[in-house]
Amino acid sequence: MRDFSRDHRWLSINTTTVRKQGDLLAIIEACRRHGIRGLSPWRDQVAEVGLERAARAIRDGGFELSGYCRGGMFTGDASRRQEIIDDNRRAVDEAATLGAACLVLVVGGLPQFSRPGSSPSKDIGVAREMVAEQLGLLLEYARQAQVPLAIEPLHPMYAADRACVNTMRQALDLCDTLDPEGQGGIGVAVDVYHTWWDPELEEQIRRAGKSRLLAFHVCDWLVPTRDLLNDRGMMGDGVIDIPRIRGWVEAAGFAGYSEVEIFSHDWWKQPIDHVLSTCVERHRTSV
Amino acid sequence: MRDFSRDHRWLSINTTTVRKQGDLLAIIEACRRHGIRGLSPWRDQVAEVGLERAARAIRDGGFELSGYCRGGMFTGDASRRQEIIDDNRRAVDEAATLGAACLVLVVGGLPQFSRPGSSPSKDIGVAREMVAEQLGLLLEYARQAQVPLAIEPLHPMYAADRACVNTMRQALDLCDTLDPEGQGGIGVAVDVYHTWWDPELEEQIRRAGKSRLLAFHVCDWLVPTRDLLNDRGMMGDGVIDIPRIRGWVEAAGFAGYSEVEIFSHDWWKQPIDHVLSTCVERHRTSV
Repeated sequence: MRDFSRDHRWLSINTTTVRKQGDLLAIIEACRRHGIRGLSPWRDQVAEVGLERAARAIRDGGFELSGYCRGGMFTGDASRRQEIIDDNRRAVDEAATLGAACLVLVVGGLPQFSRPGSSPSKDIGVAREMVAEQLGLLLEYARQAQVPLAIEPLHPMYAADRACVNTMRQALDLCDTLDPEGQGGIGVAVDVYHTWWDPELEEQIRRAGKSRLLAFHVCDWLVPTRDLLNDRGMMGDGVIDIPRIRGWVEAAGFAGYSEVEIFSHDWWKQPIDHVLSTCVERHRTSV
Repeated sequence: MRDFSRDHRWLSINTTTVRKQGDLLAIIEACRRHGIRGLSPWRDQVAEVGLERAARAIRDGGFELSGYCRGGMFTGDASRRQEIIDDNRRAVDEAATLGAACLVLVVGGLPQFSRPGSSPSKDIGVAREMVAEQLGLLLEYARQAQVPLAIEPLHPMYAADRACVNTMRQALDLCDTLDPEGQGGIGVAVDVYHTWWDPELEEQIRRAGKSRLLAFHVCDWLVPTRDLLNDRGMMGDGVIDIPRIRGWVEAAGFAGYSEVEIFSHDWWKQPIDHVLSTCVERHRTSV
């Protein structure tokens, strides 16, 4: 397992972590001040400053992108089918322009939440079929663009409104269905917040192996958690044994960035330099 | 599948659903007014009015108990070991006195939350080992008392502080380990709130079969869910396809009560007769 205690060479900042403190260019500049080399920006943050400007700032700053957030929301009624295809192809194109290591996919929950206006449904099984079908279509396109697709299993508490893929086993089953020969271009993003509770986590990380492990996201689970969406903790402040999970991921061959992704009303209120210096410190001590 | 549309013969009320509206005797009286025959009381509610008085009121009212809530919280440090054993034996004895169909078990999360004061730990694997060990001890005692133990897998969002058994697969693996010959006395409580998201739910219900399906709990998952603990919905108000899950449970041989268990700040504010009449109506239309 790599020693993170002496530097933060493998720290990446998911830009949602400081999204309330400034636009993407301000975030890039702040990361440069803190010697951070990895980034993972969000589509809306890129769009706000313009794709070309974002790409230039990333290139000029010498950053690598551990991922691009996010594609997906594959579930919708028939009237939204083409929109879903087009939207995801654009996400792939943007990821290619930015040189991202992968496009992170949040696959969508029930159609009425993923694509508002879709006919309401309680059939999570059908939603899962939609995901498999749309993923299959996107995979061809993404392979041509040479953008690996990273399915992110989300915590089961987001099954209704954000993602009906909720375990590593389920995500890897999808990968095996869509890529039975192991040709590649599709894998998973392992986020400790979403997966730490899973009794099969170690086994499924091993099953994924180097070829399917495309991203590793960290933050912490707070007790109590006061908000389902925006009360994630800084690494070390919660109950997740992050080094143990990183050990499993690295034992399986992953050697990329440890990407900090914290949605938190508390951290969004802090000055950007305080958040980033805390990320650097905790990367060394708690990841 | 049984037709629930014409009567509520198989409706049971978990008494936490109306715990803020009155004590157990008041709840029993209210259930009688609404022609409800099944109950599932909580230990603290029983203790408040006294075990003998509670038992008499239940007997005199002609109620059946679909369960007794709850044993468990098996995780603690070494200093709490005897307390855990004694506490759970008392729960078994009370369930026997009350004639409950099973003792529902919430197994505990990390020790510092299940048994406050225990040394803090982030090792959910060790917590799971503690659960298996304590469950094994309790099973012998409960078999002699003829009280079946129902492991309730809780939603993964409670893994840290309430239960580190979070899927049906995991609960049934535990049952198979502790009762390899299928002698019985141990099984699961399936609560749609905790399990609806699980891609393996149908398969694991089938695996459980009649002998391991000891209880069936209903409520609904609201979007948005504003509180991790106390924002459960009335059946029909959320996104869970409850009749489909009841169909699976009954196809596997379950023929007992459908127990309404709603933790909700909203419903706790309503008059008890309104809550119970709504439970009766939704039992007919949405379960």
